[in-house]
Amino acid sequence: MSRDFPERDWRLLRELKPIALDRLCQRTLGEVQALCADAGKTNHQRYLALWDMIRERDDELAGAFDDLRRSTAVWRLTAMRQLGVLTDDEFGRFSEEVRDSVLTAIEILGAARGGRSKRSKKE
Amino acid sequence: MSRDFPERDWRLLRELKPIALDRLCQRTLGEVQALCADAGKTNHQRYLALWDMIRERDDELAGAFDDLRRSTAVWRLTAMRQLGVLTDDEFGRFSEEVRDSVLTAIEILGAARGGRSKRSKKE
Repeated sequence: MSRDFPERDWRLLRELKPIALDRLCQRTLGEVQALCADAGKTNHQRYLALWDMIRERDDELAGAFDDLRRSTAVWRLTAMRQLGVLTDDEFGRFSEEVRDSVLTAIEILGAARGGRSKRSKKE
Repeated sequence: MSRDFPERDWRLLRELKPIALDRLCQRTLGEVQALCADAGKTNHQRYLALWDMIRERDDELAGAFDDLRRSTAVWRLTAMRQLGVLTDDEFGRFSEEVRDSVLTAIEILGAARGGRSKRSKKE
């Protein structure tokens, strides 16, 4: 891709950011609720697991949503796509140039969520 | 109270620590679940509120349970009592000397949980 993130894609990314962010938060809250209800752990074990999980999720959230600028747009979009918080339809609205960059980055950085055998440094 | 935390009280504190810790974690998990289900907030607002809450609770937990030694015992017991994670019956099992120290400390540091008008530096 050329150096500049295209204006049309940039507007689209800013439009989709709050939707994707809400989706990630919704998923995290669901995971938190499941963990709180995990009968296989003591309350203290659940609490510790909650801390580990929420710290890991916050790293993911920061990597996809913090400091969104045109110069970081491909990184952020790649992270959003990798986290699975953009639908195929939404991703399909980006230009072919941007999509190619993101898909190539994902190929290099690792498979999209669901296809990853290892998800973080902690695993 | 004399300089040394009495042996009998020290054994009792170590016996009650895991019970009080479990109680604090249980209460925190309940608060987390209520927050996750708060329909008055967006998913992102809930997520941010979750972060704030869990950080605050972790400070409380550390103040009451981390680094438990005889030299920190009155501090830790005071924090546990202030957090309301020891019942009156459990607290009543400590020697009068220890109880007096704790109650005096609570009087100086602020009312027990429930009686506090302000709970932390964040409020």
